[in-house]
Amino acid sequence: MTDYTPTREDKFSFGLWTVGWEGVDVFGSAVRAPLAPADAVHKLAELGAYGVTFHDNDVFPFDATAAQRSDHVAAFRKALDETGLTVPMATTNLFGHPIFKDGGFTANHRDVRRFAIRKVAENIDLAVELGAKVYVCWGGREGAESGGAKDVRVALDRMKEAYDILGQYVLDQGYDLRFAVEPKPNEPRGDILLPTIGHALAFINELEHPEMVGLNPEVGHEEMAGVNFAHGIAQALWHGKLFHVDLNGQHGPRFDQDLRFGAGNLRGAFWAVDTLENGGYDGPRHFDFKPPRTEDMEGVWESARGCMRNYLILREKSRAFRADPQVQAALADSRLDELARPTLAEGETLASLREEKWDDARIEALAERGMGFERLDQLAMDHLLGVAE
Amino acid sequence: MTDYTPTREDKFSFGLWTVGWEGVDVFGSAVRAPLAPADAVHKLAELGAYGVTFHDNDVFPFDATAAQRSDHVAAFRKALDETGLTVPMATTNLFGHPIFKDGGFTANHRDVRRFAIRKVAENIDLAVELGAKVYVCWGGREGAESGGAKDVRVALDRMKEAYDILGQYVLDQGYDLRFAVEPKPNEPRGDILLPTIGHALAFINELEHPEMVGLNPEVGHEEMAGVNFAHGIAQALWHGKLFHVDLNGQHGPRFDQDLRFGAGNLRGAFWAVDTLENGGYDGPRHFDFKPPRTEDMEGVWESARGCMRNYLILREKSRAFRADPQVQAALADSRLDELARPTLAEGETLASLREEKWDDARIEALAERGMGFERLDQLAMDHLLGVAE
Amino acid sequence: MTDYTPTREDKFSFGLWTVGWEGVDVFGSAVRAPLAPADAVHKLAELGAYGVTFHDNDVFPFDATAAQRSDHVAAFRKALDETGLTVPMATTNLFGHPIFKDGGFTANHRDVRRFAIRKVAENIDLAVELGAKVYVCWGGREGAESGGAKDVRVALDRMKEAYDILGQYVLDQGYDLRFAVEPKPNEPRGDILLPTIGHALAFINELEHPEMVGLNPEVGHEEMAGVNFAHGIAQALWHGKLFHVDLNGQHGPRFDQDLRFGAGNLRGAFWAVDTLENGGYDGPRHFDFKPPRTEDMEGVWESARGCMRNYLILREKSRAFRADPQVQAALADSRLDELARPTLAEGETLASLREEKWDDARIEALAERGMGFERLDQLAMDHLLGVAE
Amino acid sequence: MTDYTPTREDKFSFGLWTVGWEGVDVFGSAVRAPLAPADAVHKLAELGAYGVTFHDNDVFPFDATAAQRSDHVAAFRKALDETGLTVPMATTNLFGHPIFKDGGFTANHRDVRRFAIRKVAENIDLAVELGAKVYVCWGGREGAESGGAKDVRVALDRMKEAYDILGQYVLDQGYDLRFAVEPKPNEPRGDILLPTIGHALAFINELEHPEMVGLNPEVGHEEMAGVNFAHGIAQALWHGKLFHVDLNGQHGPRFDQDLRFGAGNLRGAFWAVDTLENGGYDGPRHFDFKPPRTEDMEGVWESARGCMRNYLILREKSRAFRADPQVQAALADSRLDELARPTLAEGETLASLREEKWDDARIEALAERGMGFERLDQLAMDHLLGVAE
Repeated sequence: MTDYTPTREDKFSFGLWTVGWEGVDVFGSAVRAPLAPADAVHKLAELGAYGVTFHDNDVFPFDATAAQRSDHVAAFRKALDETGLTVPMATTNLFGHPIFKDGGFTANHRDVRRFAIRKVAENIDLAVELGAKVYVCWGGREGAESGGAKDVRVALDRMKEAYDILGQYVLDQGYDLRFAVEPKPNEPRGDILLPTIGHALAFINELEHPEMVGLNPEVGHEEMAGVNFAHGIAQALWHGKLFHVDLNGQHGPRFDQDLRFGAGNLRGAFWAVDTLENGGYDGPRHFDFKPPRTEDMEGVWESARGCMRNYLILREKSRAFRADPQVQAALADSRLDELARPTLAEGETLASLREEKWDDARIEALAERGMGFERLDQLAMDHLLGVAE
Repeated sequence: MTDYTPTREDKFSFGLWTVGWEGVDVFGSAVRAPLAPADAVHKLAELGAYGVTFHDNDVFPFDATAAQRSDHVAAFRKALDETGLTVPMATTNLFGHPIFKDGGFTANHRDVRRFAIRKVAENIDLAVELGAKVYVCWGGREGAESGGAKDVRVALDRMKEAYDILGQYVLDQGYDLRFAVEPKPNEPRGDILLPTIGHALAFINELEHPEMVGLNPEVGHEEMAGVNFAHGIAQALWHGKLFHVDLNGQHGPRFDQDLRFGAGNLRGAFWAVDTLENGGYDGPRHFDFKPPRTEDMEGVWESARGCMRNYLILREKSRAFRADPQVQAALADSRLDELARPTLAEGETLASLREEKWDDARIEALAERGMGFERLDQLAMDHLLGVAE
Repeated sequence: MTDYTPTREDKFSFGLWTVGWEGVDVFGSAVRAPLAPADAVHKLAELGAYGVTFHDNDVFPFDATAAQRSDHVAAFRKALDETGLTVPMATTNLFGHPIFKDGGFTANHRDVRRFAIRKVAENIDLAVELGAKVYVCWGGREGAESGGAKDVRVALDRMKEAYDILGQYVLDQGYDLRFAVEPKPNEPRGDILLPTIGHALAFINELEHPEMVGLNPEVGHEEMAGVNFAHGIAQALWHGKLFHVDLNGQHGPRFDQDLRFGAGNLRGAFWAVDTLENGGYDGPRHFDFKPPRTEDMEGVWESARGCMRNYLILREKSRAFRADPQVQAALADSRLDELARPTLAEGETLASLREEKWDDARIEALAERGMGFERLDQLAMDHLLGVAE
Repeated sequence: MTDYTPTREDKFSFGLWTVGWEGVDVFGSAVRAPLAPADAVHKLAELGAYGVTFHDNDVFPFDATAAQRSDHVAAFRKALDETGLTVPMATTNLFGHPIFKDGGFTANHRDVRRFAIRKVAENIDLAVELGAKVYVCWGGREGAESGGAKDVRVALDRMKEAYDILGQYVLDQGYDLRFAVEPKPNEPRGDILLPTIGHALAFINELEHPEMVGLNPEVGHEEMAGVNFAHGIAQALWHGKLFHVDLNGQHGPRFDQDLRFGAGNLRGAFWAVDTLENGGYDGPRHFDFKPPRTEDMEGVWESARGCMRNYLILREKSRAFRADPQVQAALADSRLDELARPTLAEGETLASLREEKWDDARIEALAERGMGFERLDQLAMDHLLGVAE
């Protein structure tokens, strides 16, 4: 049996807020004690992660004085140094404090927007200092519960303004940092701006420096909209915009479950790994999950371990699937090779295409031929279940 | 009581396939007799529509000979001439015939793709001849039921190829025609490529002639993904890409209901109309619905009449809402005016913003102040329900 | 214009936890200060409510000593006395404290179940003392995130055991109190036991004293499962089991939004009111909503006011709809009167029915006749929008 | 590697309409030729099924004369005799013909209801003649698109009337036949009566002969409402009402996909098999799926084969999971054994329970202890993926 113990080469990273989630939800209070960032770092290193990521207020409190901030950061950095863990990504908490109840970059209150941009800039400095290469922006409170509360076109102007200001700042500072927008359809707001991978990709094209901004899609967020996550990251890759990825689990349209990776839509997880591994993505495999509230700290680590284990299992299965001669024959039978060929031949024109003779028999023949997708999918299923012959 | 009888100035249009739907679904056969396009045109003109739209095979059968095609088109054109109805938009049926079972532009079979492109080109000629200014592409069969069946990145290459070929054709012919992509998340395929407004907007940016391609969003398709339709068209408008719109009704994530406009999410319909009327959209108000299978032809026309009536009612309510001084005060109280102000003042920089003094009291004050959204939304509700004071 | 100011005869009630919600959610901390129950009572009385409802820990803290509990209850009771507000319903908090992280009645830990039952019994005593006639049980934490965590059949045995013990207690004490189960499909648990109105109705039949137990359906909970709330309460009424009702708003399958009544699915709200008003329900119209986190206390009261106002508006519209002669004609045309007639005539048997002659023409005629539902629904829409002629 | 070839002992059955589906959907015409029932029977026998099931109009056309009906039935019976296949279940098509556009048992038209009951009675005679023990009723057209179209309480009276008449008929004839209600939330109607397992279970309790009526839940129908299928059939088993089961696959709330069993929610399929195998269900494992429209007949059989194969694979994994000592230890650690113990000890009363001493330390200890669910679920995942150690 293969050993599914992760190594740093696997590039697994975790948010401090994941294993550190205390379990507060709308209906109940904390079930676990606060976890010091340094302790999280040590334990994650021990489990095989290569990186940790953070919101500013995962490391120091919202209202920390400069001295407190510095102490907290020092303790965090010390743990990084001791373990050799990297910080591949960082982000800002623009959702927890009541000041952000109507958003950060698109809050109706101009002063809130000013405070938000400044907060991000400050944490960008820290992120770069700690070595982050990607800066994630999840606009969890950017949205509305009712139609009059937000003029969306105007709000997108403000969103663009914030990205442009911060992008220019990174350029001016000469930072080696790119932004990654994290879309989500709803929760905690009734509707969130840039609700899916697609909306965020489109938005980026309007920025001053679109090349600096890509995506950080999250499995569960796309599943909440009932859209196919593997398809979504494939489109992001097609646009050259998959800068980072958040892996977790979700059962379709409902509250944001943040299950460990693999739980939820398992077949979807297989195709997500297959797409990441074969689509040219070489960034961190970042887990953004919430160990269920039923777990104590032992359960938390079990859950974190499961995220990595499931990724490694699925990666191995994806490789075996792609290497299987039966699969290769089935892919050809399903004409995936033909999909890869341009529709017009070199030099061919629409005019010449239109001159082609099409008789009923030819149309009939094409209409009748089966695509062989069920056989292909059953082969994938057999690999996934570990019963491929 | 206002008269909600539509006039041609209201720019209401209907697809031939809407009032002409015979009621075939997965579980049952036709409940209504075929409706001749000419009859549809006459009746829609009588009801107050200004335009009709069509798929090629709404006007003539898939396997029509040239002579049959010509006869069918002549009869359709005659009705247009008699009534003065326009054809603001046309589209191709790339989903009904078995040849398209795996899609048109992205079918794995290269020959199917070739047949599809040619079919579109032929109907573009007819569309332009009949005066259409917008050519819609709904890729209903472009997708997959299982992960191995479609390499999404390669499929998007093929999708781009098709749009580029057809865009070039329109340019070469000097046609005054723009394309409008119609996104849909699923049904009839398990997952459809370009599943939402956002994905389609992003895709367009990769085309050879992005300026020629915009969107035709449909109320129900976005609601099927649980995303806010008014937000979606607002974003499309922000990108300058709302070329056309499909109005109907839907009850959230479930099968594609195609209810008459207003049925389904009524509050959403109000905000959709408000966005269309105030967002600079001046194209057709196009209804793409299916009169329920329970109705006979009288019910079909009742349903079509209802689409237009509901639009006019909601338009009137949107105007009253925007004109109401109480509403204007409430919008200001909710700081919509502040949202419209740039976050940085003229000449201000991030550096100067960061120098600003922020003490706890100022943060507290911002955090505490309510946004007044519930009052604003109740005012909208009162207008919608016709009980505003 | 009608005055939509509520009076006590309208029987509007509110949970203390609704207007008292401080705004803590998974992503953010409290935005509003705690609201003393007595203050809530006074304000709700002023707004026109006739009753308030409570969880034990809305009135006194989980860890209150007997003396503290008594003080808190006294303050609450004093407010009730001063205002004349009633307590039509009470319930137990079996979800907030970490001890209930795996549920109350169906927690795997037997000791937790014992603690839960005892906690309910204690609050039943208080509820009865304060005059409550209905005792709601929302099993928000009764469920699981993964398949192995709960043996559902065994858990239902435990659920039944709890209801039987508590039912017997109420009988033994001679309390005039009935139970109402509140179903919910998910959140905060991945899947909750008794997820819909139907599941709860079925469960009740297995109890020792089914006559003592009915339902407290909530608009949003059913909409989260994409099922029709008005249909659900109609079925509950059909079973004689609509003991109480929770009114609020929701946008289909997503997180539990708890919008004010009327917001969300407005057409659904109209039919819900129509069903309550015409279906023989005469219990409280209870609002279980969460004033959005964007609001300060003024917005909270605005939101509470909106719940009642919207109910009154919809009630008036339902009455006008039912009284409208056009509607009555349309209902007959849609053959609602025929639906009310038994399918077999008095004395008729299946055998005689089978002897009836059915020729093709008769079948055809039935198949062709339209149902007139679109016209009927447009009449309802016109009434809802205030434009009925 | 285990051989996953089915035998008749596995009790796999298929509807004639599954492998015989020609591929007509709302957007496209037939892609496959009609399949003669006799051919379906022979092929299914060859693949390892033990039974076939049918709607009346799967075997003979709606408008067949008595002679035609007899011929068709004879051909079907001959194939059954030749292959030894059984007919464990039969059902009536009350949805395909336009006469049923508003339903069968609950159509507003009384004459339609009369025709429907008679049609069922006739097919019950045939079903019994062919050996069926279960008679399924799927009320696919029993519902509405709009609120005024159906008085749900009255419609439930009519539904009850139909079941009572037919139940009495079965009793009078001395037939050995039980009914199984098949719930579905929507599609083809906007909302269907008895939308979930729960609603149907509740309904049955109001019948004259509830003991004769149980359920036929379908995986996809419950997933369309976002509720847990394994939980649903566990509740049906708890009520003694799981008379039959429809196995297939679905991706959450969207159109009815009818994927082959295993596709869709794979983890859900594992728990469904685990529940069937360990919950005392010994009826047919019936597949109600639609081979995707992309497939030719070879693909159809591949898909049918996949349904059975996946069931056998999952059954084997469920057995290994339950037999694994690590799992047994984990179940104990998650206190599933405690869940199985009554909450009150033999002879214990609520009064004595309430006398028990509970101090803060005891509450704290219970609150702190983790449930071990993540470890347990990862063990299940390891078994499912074939990597359990």
